[in-house]
Amino acid sequence: MTKVTPRSEDYSRWYTDVVQRAELADYAPVRGCMVIRPYGYTLWENLKEALDRRFKATGHVNAYFPLFIPMSFLEKEAEHVEGFSPELAVVTIGGGKQLEEPLVVRPTSETIIGHMYAKWVQSYRDLPILINQWANVVRWEMRTRLFLRTMEFLWQEGHTAHATADEAMEETLLILDLYAQLATEDGAIPVIKGRKSDSEKFAGAVTSYTIEAMMGDRRALQSGTSHFLGQNFARAFDIEFLDENNELQHVWTTSWGLSTRMVGAVVMVHGDDQGLVLPPRLAPFQAVIVPIWRDDEGQAKVMEAAQSVKAALDANVRLKIDERDGLSPGWKFNDWEMRGVPLRIEIGPKDVEQGQVVLARRDMPGREGKTSVPVEGLAVAVPEMLDTIQAGLYQRAQAFLEEHSSYPEDQEGLREAVSDGFAYAWWCGGLECEEKVKDETGATIRCIPLEQEKGTGRCIVCGEEAEEQAVFGRAY
Amino acid sequence: MTKVTPRSEDYSRWYTDVVQRAELADYAPVRGCMVIRPYGYTLWENLKEALDRRFKATGHVNAYFPLFIPMSFLEKEAEHVEGFSPELAVVTIGGGKQLEEPLVVRPTSETIIGHMYAKWVQSYRDLPILINQWANVVRWEMRTRLFLRTMEFLWQEGHTAHATADEAMEETLLILDLYAQLATEDGAIPVIKGRKSDSEKFAGAVTSYTIEAMMGDRRALQSGTSHFLGQNFARAFDIEFLDENNELQHVWTTSWGLSTRMVGAVVMVHGDDQGLVLPPRLAPFQAVIVPIWRDDEGQAKVMEAAQSVKAALDANVRLKIDERDGLSPGWKFNDWEMRGVPLRIEIGPKDVEQGQVVLARRDMPGREGKTSVPVEGLAVAVPEMLDTIQAGLYQRAQAFLEEHSSYPEDQEGLREAVSDGFAYAWWCGGLECEEKVKDETGATIRCIPLEQEKGTGRCIVCGEEAEEQAVFGRAY
Repeated sequence: MTKVTPRSEDYSRWYTDVVQRAELADYAPVRGCMVIRPYGYTLWENLKEALDRRFKATGHVNAYFPLFIPMSFLEKEAEHVEGFSPELAVVTIGGGKQLEEPLVVRPTSETIIGHMYAKWVQSYRDLPILINQWANVVRWEMRTRLFLRTMEFLWQEGHTAHATADEAMEETLLILDLYAQLATEDGAIPVIKGRKSDSEKFAGAVTSYTIEAMMGDRRALQSGTSHFLGQNFARAFDIEFLDENNELQHVWTTSWGLSTRMVGAVVMVHGDDQGLVLPPRLAPFQAVIVPIWRDDEGQAKVMEAAQSVKAALDANVRLKIDERDGLSPGWKFNDWEMRGVPLRIEIGPKDVEQGQVVLARRDMPGREGKTSVPVEGLAVAVPEMLDTIQAGLYQRAQAFLEEHSSYPEDQEGLREAVSDGFAYAWWCGGLECEEKVKDETGATIRCIPLEQEKGTGRCIVCGEEAEEQAVFGRAY
Repeated sequence: MTKVTPRSEDYSRWYTDVVQRAELADYAPVRGCMVIRPYGYTLWENLKEALDRRFKATGHVNAYFPLFIPMSFLEKEAEHVEGFSPELAVVTIGGGKQLEEPLVVRPTSETIIGHMYAKWVQSYRDLPILINQWANVVRWEMRTRLFLRTMEFLWQEGHTAHATADEAMEETLLILDLYAQLATEDGAIPVIKGRKSDSEKFAGAVTSYTIEAMMGDRRALQSGTSHFLGQNFARAFDIEFLDENNELQHVWTTSWGLSTRMVGAVVMVHGDDQGLVLPPRLAPFQAVIVPIWRDDEGQAKVMEAAQSVKAALDANVRLKIDERDGLSPGWKFNDWEMRGVPLRIEIGPKDVEQGQVVLARRDMPGREGKTSVPVEGLAVAVPEMLDTIQAGLYQRAQAFLEEHSSYPEDQEGLREAVSDGFAYAWWCGGLECEEKVKDETGATIRCIPLEQEKGTGRCIVCGEEAEEQAVFGRAY
């Protein structure tokens, strides 16, 4: 089996190698599009389920709105159309005929959903509306990369409407919390929750919030965003309601999205030069049993043991036996390492005799990750070890993030800091200072973290008084 | 609450009324498109889960292929492009520029998936490929109806590749069985499994199989189809493999799909003049608790009882308490009847005193569907009653199907039979006879049932010897 390009040699090639060799995804015949292969799709299904569960537990429901949006809808919100029009795919022919009004393939659904909410909302009794949809969207991107930036991608987009600004803001931040929980608890990915600067916010939003994660090359990945839209879309689409005093008001709306990009984050945060390393909570297979034998008699015994180990674990662990013929155990070890399966369970004739198996942890390649465990206690030991691996991956990623975060005090320090990772620095809030950093270092303001030190400081660029610190970093 | 149009008055308006009043779906601003509202989408989610579970249990995996297909791909399979080209939506502008090759919004994905399989399959070891995708597709339909025929719809499409014709045929029929199981076990909808006549088969298939159900107006609804594609797409896309003798062969493929149309079937098979009647296995809420009180003291007691009933049932029943203020119990009864909730649990002050609740079955409106049940045994009684309702709905639909199926012996009898429902009749297999029936009665051959009487007969149209019976009926 050919190895992947080492990260130190070419991180970007390493990423593409891993995504393709582990069969997460493949290039589609249409430029910029991807095929999500079964292994990658299962990872996405697991992410989806973990997030959907959280949405439902907080009162959200799923629905489905149309793929096609009349061009005129986008034009109703000035900033929105300005932001999205360079990226649109447009249907001009339908059923063999030229269309009178071209249809946009949704890049996001605020407009069409706003149109429907205007129809559905009459009174304060109809609020809040807490709807999410799982869907595909299309943005005409020039530079694409598997999972991270593709012309079509899968995501969820939530769209809520509320009677008050406070309630809408509360919703915006609740969702940011759910995204952070998904990243940390399921993805084992530490994130910084924060506000986007005005230049980086969503086209049409009042305020955008984000979770930012650090990838293995110390660049930032915006991994989920939640937007407070104020009354911008409510005004553009006349979403009005009679309040308790019988007065007509515009609703307050939010929107929020998390996409298949998160699969790319999982690859880049945990992967190593042997391939993927998957957090157990998201792994399509949490463990794989590799039976090892030399002769037919050995095979029968080993397979019997493998079956009984599988039966003992089936209820609590997603696992399979690698029964493929004609492949050596070593080849199989490499294959499952490439695919990032958290735990390998090796069973050979000697293990059968001794009533044990060998557990090999993917997150600790080599001898130190191997232990012999009696078959008897496996139903407890394996889930425990998976929890340990999950926690360990998070701790390792957290340590990496801390190691590559710094607190420069001047522009020279900032330049150095962003070439190594994230830099926390006071910022006056001015667009000029933000752009100066971008021009000189290639780093952008990833967010203004919600958690801030007390007090004020001096803007790292202009030296004026600054009330908040921002996180600067180079980003995907 | 305004009632729906009675079925006897105008079945088609009844259908649209129910779908809208029960908030299953709404019309979208783009002609022919629909919005699936949360209540309808949950119904779809439940169908989806019930089918996905069956796919996975039989070794299938999910993946995701791109929305956009190069126009040239469709042209590679002659029958396929002929069948689909009148229905295509075409993207001609991307990122503000005219595209060199127009992109088709997928009407179905045989072509793009065939292209990828050609890349992935090398040897017999790579087979079978058993992939399904859950996706949206677009077909430019002129006459649309909510759920039954919409320009964009949600579905699953399975695409498998096999080393032999036998194996591919086995797969085609396995899927037909899974569809039939979904319809009967979850949807409580009896179906006829059969083969499509050549004139009705999928564009590009060798043989198409279908499950056909009878709606409340005695018309047929094709509810799921499974196609044996032979080597047609394998040849068009060069999907070849080295067999065990090291010889190059084309694979054998299948494709199969079931869509949101099934939601329409559930509405039309079980609904009545009070609205939806949902089978418990698919219902978003299997039961709803309606608390009834006159004063504050009563309210406190009743709500406490309602909470404890909910707690007792929560683990096994999808249910909620209707706590809405300012609405009378009678209004709520009607509302939940419209929404087809299988079981209403009424709790009033007297019930609390007597330690009981009233269970009211949606499938038996009026007194006969009401029983008082002690609170103690509810955790057993409610799931049991839901099973009884599920079975009862199936039996009722089965009886209706039988009542409106007949076995005419001549053309006059056939004319009468198809105006009442389904007609089983010998058919010679000739296109002319098929078209004659269609022209004269408006009925089509729904399928040639897999289960056939032994022997042969005389074609009901031409009198020639016929080896099979066909089911004729008017269809959606």
